[in-house]
Amino acid sequence: MAQVIADRRDVDFVLFEQFQLDELSKNEVFADFNKKTIDMIVTEVRGLAVKEILPTMKVGDHVGCKYEKGEVTTPQEYKRAWALLQEGEWLAPTRDPKWGGQGMPETLALAIRDYLFGANSALLLFGSLTHGAARLVELFGTDAQKEIYLKKMYTGQWSGTMLLTESEAGSDLGALTTTATRNPDGTFSLTGNKIFITGGDQDLTENIIHQTLARIEGAPAGSRGISLFLVPKFRVNPDGTPGESNDVVCTGIEEKMGLHGSSTCSLALGGKGSCIGMLLGEENKGLAEMFVMMNEERLVVGLQAMACASSSYLHALEFARTRIQGPMLGSKDAKGVAIINHPDVRRMLMTMKVYVEGMRSLLYFIANCEDKKHLAQSDEEKETYQDLIDVLIPLGKGYVSDRSVQVCDMGIQVFGGYGYTSEYPVEQLLRDARICPIYEGTNGIQAMDLLGRKLGLKKGKLFTTLMAKMQHTVSEAKAVEAVKPLAAAVEGCMAKLREVGMHLGKMAMSAETHKAFANAALFLEASGDVVMGWMLLWRASIAAQKIAGGAKAKDLTYYQGQVKSAEFFITSVLPVTLGRMDALMNASGAAVEIADEAFGGK
Amino acid sequence: MAQVIADRRDVDFVLFEQFQLDELSKNEVFADFNKKTIDMIVTEVRGLAVKEILPTMKVGDHVGCKYEKGEVTTPQEYKRAWALLQEGEWLAPTRDPKWGGQGMPETLALAIRDYLFGANSALLLFGSLTHGAARLVELFGTDAQKEIYLKKMYTGQWSGTMLLTESEAGSDLGALTTTATRNPDGTFSLTGNKIFITGGDQDLTENIIHQTLARIEGAPAGSRGISLFLVPKFRVNPDGTPGESNDVVCTGIEEKMGLHGSSTCSLALGGKGSCIGMLLGEENKGLAEMFVMMNEERLVVGLQAMACASSSYLHALEFARTRIQGPMLGSKDAKGVAIINHPDVRRMLMTMKVYVEGMRSLLYFIANCEDKKHLAQSDEEKETYQDLIDVLIPLGKGYVSDRSVQVCDMGIQVFGGYGYTSEYPVEQLLRDARICPIYEGTNGIQAMDLLGRKLGLKKGKLFTTLMAKMQHTVSEAKAVEAVKPLAAAVEGCMAKLREVGMHLGKMAMSAETHKAFANAALFLEASGDVVMGWMLLWRASIAAQKIAGGAKAKDLTYYQGQVKSAEFFITSVLPVTLGRMDALMNASGAAVEIADEAFGGK
Repeated sequence: MAQVIADRRDVDFVLFEQFQLDELSKNEVFADFNKKTIDMIVTEVRGLAVKEILPTMKVGDHVGCKYEKGEVTTPQEYKRAWALLQEGEWLAPTRDPKWGGQGMPETLALAIRDYLFGANSALLLFGSLTHGAARLVELFGTDAQKEIYLKKMYTGQWSGTMLLTESEAGSDLGALTTTATRNPDGTFSLTGNKIFITGGDQDLTENIIHQTLARIEGAPAGSRGISLFLVPKFRVNPDGTPGESNDVVCTGIEEKMGLHGSSTCSLALGGKGSCIGMLLGEENKGLAEMFVMMNEERLVVGLQAMACASSSYLHALEFARTRIQGPMLGSKDAKGVAIINHPDVRRMLMTMKVYVEGMRSLLYFIANCEDKKHLAQSDEEKETYQDLIDVLIPLGKGYVSDRSVQVCDMGIQVFGGYGYTSEYPVEQLLRDARICPIYEGTNGIQAMDLLGRKLGLKKGKLFTTLMAKMQHTVSEAKAVEAVKPLAAAVEGCMAKLREVGMHLGKMAMSAETHKAFANAALFLEASGDVVMGWMLLWRASIAAQKIAGGAKAKDLTYYQGQVKSAEFFITSVLPVTLGRMDALMNASGAAVEIADEAFGGK
Repeated sequence: MAQVIADRRDVDFVLFEQFQLDELSKNEVFADFNKKTIDMIVTEVRGLAVKEILPTMKVGDHVGCKYEKGEVTTPQEYKRAWALLQEGEWLAPTRDPKWGGQGMPETLALAIRDYLFGANSALLLFGSLTHGAARLVELFGTDAQKEIYLKKMYTGQWSGTMLLTESEAGSDLGALTTTATRNPDGTFSLTGNKIFITGGDQDLTENIIHQTLARIEGAPAGSRGISLFLVPKFRVNPDGTPGESNDVVCTGIEEKMGLHGSSTCSLALGGKGSCIGMLLGEENKGLAEMFVMMNEERLVVGLQAMACASSSYLHALEFARTRIQGPMLGSKDAKGVAIINHPDVRRMLMTMKVYVEGMRSLLYFIANCEDKKHLAQSDEEKETYQDLIDVLIPLGKGYVSDRSVQVCDMGIQVFGGYGYTSEYPVEQLLRDARICPIYEGTNGIQAMDLLGRKLGLKKGKLFTTLMAKMQHTVSEAKAVEAVKPLAAAVEGCMAKLREVGMHLGKMAMSAETHKAFANAALFLEASGDVVMGWMLLWRASIAAQKIAGGAKAKDLTYYQGQVKSAEFFITSVLPVTLGRMDALMNASGAAVEIADEAFGGK
């Protein structure tokens, strides 16, 4: 039977063969997670995703979330699905068991999210934002707050949201105007209007905890005057049960291109003057505190996009294997064949395959760095992993979401006319994934983060650390006959990327800042391509060694496919990347030099 | 006030400055269309498009076409819009006035479609398919049929459709199974089921003429046994009025990603044994006859996609000019500025601008070749224009629709979170445009047409003719100081494209056919990029000369913008294209060599 959502062999390859996840169990922290247990967990979550969550995806799109008189209702089918996510403790598997988690490695949690987000990303968003919101309590809350909120949130009894955006404060949060007035009892009264709040209201949980950015009266203007507040939908009684309404009113939900199964809410805080919030962390440090969460949420967005791409790929593959149309090219036999035999369809499938594989490896690698950082014995080692995470996050969010949308688009194309209809899920996957390049920092902001911040941070140490890590893979691959030329090609691209990075980095700090940043998105794209080349080479290098060592028949095809993936990407995509880097060495200033009026339209 | 749909200055530039459309009026055939008349026509159609048609776009998406008990209803607002299209004779402006046309040049008709499709492509599709269906009557019908059908169709009193696709016969029409049985009176009884029929049923016109491909009993299998039939929804009385039902039953409409305002119908022919069709043209020549129309329909699809892209660009531009968010990069002033000031937003706007401009020029150029062919004095001249049309159609359909979808995608990104909501039209424009790479021959088929057919046709003459035309522009541009280096860059790309074409063309005819065609889509992309470079250079060359000659103040900014467009594309996109051509010179065979099972998913 055809697999859906994610290819299990590929997930296993990444977990065990590329990142040796089972090795972590040698450490006491992850002692419970040996290979057998990991296998069981992935099998269980896959079963849940395929049998219980996936069937809610289409209804989430078609019925969607409804708004009436201040209340949001989710599709009926969501209730059972949410209960199952709670029951299996799938919402915060990496957290401490005492708060309702399973103490699992981040890498393994990514495999879980791979399946669950691929099954219904709109539904899972309620969970991932709850996780993020609870993390803020864990990091900045008092012990009393932790006792009240953490377990309820990590187990999905209560949900959480993040209230950042306002109509005039999107990418520029420093412009927000929601105010917090100090009350005598140490709480704050909040007043303001937030928009685009994912899960801002819903009927899945008995309470909703809004982590809210607001400005305390008298605080400085801009981003230095923003504080973080915990604002429950229902005030919490001393016994921890939800009490009276806290004057957080949902005033509407957005009609969107996709993700209809996720409520995107407008919220009015303190319309009746009775919205009470508790300061989390320090006054005026709210933005920095919120940003502690950002790496996590950005990785989730990348994962969400990749999961849609992975699902689209498997659907397209299954369709291509079963849809008969047209004779074999160049054959005298007029009999129709499955379209997987047509070269252009193979080209599309291959393109989808290599991106899904490369992106999966990249995201799991970032999660794996989190685990290794957690286990690191020295500050230096910790720093190395944090540096890798920091430099890769803009790619894991920006590059991955851009490419995932392209993969989903290609999924539609493989289906031809059928792909444009709602009969198949590929058009929904594109619509659902299309938000990913936008939220949690637009991909333009990711590109600025990479070029303007990460590239030059610590005198370029993050970038150097990444290059060293890549070089390690290349050096190993050079010793493997079957992938030697591929390794050399990746090495050439790395050298050029280094050159381009130096060039643009210097330009960004010169009088030509605007010109540099007009090319930031192309630099992110080129960097991501080279990282894909690295990941695919890494995979192929392992696979080639296994083939040379005499792989079992059932694995051989998979391994050969890995070598082909690397070959395809490195010979047909990386030359294009080299061209892109040529362009960056002569970065065009036309976009910033052109007069505003010359864009026309007036 | 901001312009919508299409930038009038740009449309005028293409019509008059790039293609000297007014010059055609020196010829008797187009004597009525001097500059003043053309201006009036464009102004009138623009007014109609903006004031009357555009307001029907959103309702077309939200309400859409409805199906109930065999009948399709269109949104109420469509009725008036259709009546206005009829009234202004906008549905077949290039046709002979005696049949309800205006005898207009094709180039001018493209400007009309630019505005009308950009206002509501779903609505206009009813019209363009009617035009195509009527053309088949004009080309292959008897005089009696012309008398009955032509005027009614060209004026939109009746509509027309094309019944090609069946559930097992999509890209491979040779597999179709609809049958036609000869009746004693010379008519045929048709039986079969067609799907994906745009406008297969609707309530805008009093009759619908289905141009239907079917196989006469006993005809050869495959594409050589297909004939073309005229099948009205209502049989036509001797006096030309619609009579009794002709047993063509709409059995449902597709739920689609977009284009909800266009009915995509399943039709059952002859379910009661009483569907009568008239043979059009010769028996068993149906496919070839239908293909006479294909160039026209493919150009329409490219235009439809480009019109969506153009509209998305102008919306994004207006948003970027008015949306305040974040301070100026590198400025000490914390005050928010319009996002058009942010380099990455400018990069997106510039990208959208250059593609819309380049694509507009390409499509109008193809239409202009039609006009020049029409006026040609010699067979040789006629052939030259036909060759240019033939070689450019796969680009005008395939490349243009691919890039248009990307432009629409970028339009969403400029809007950020707002772009994902239905509050702004950009997400609809993407959904509506997404069909264009699929229908009228998928873009994979366009790529095969270019590489497998057009490239080698007449020993490469089409390609050589195109190159000569491009060289002409390059040579002229080389004499213009301001664009000299840009001309050299385009020339370099042309040389490389020639090399790549030779290489892949040979490969396609070798034992490596499959490998060649696995790279056909990339070849189409590279060819399209070079053609864009040519068109943008052409524009810049004219603009630079006007600047040098002392342009009026009101034109100067526009002309400077043209030079910047060419500079942007040629310095930041064409180097990427060179990389793509490098990849093609070492065309990867990985996609065709990989084992089917190695794609995974089982």
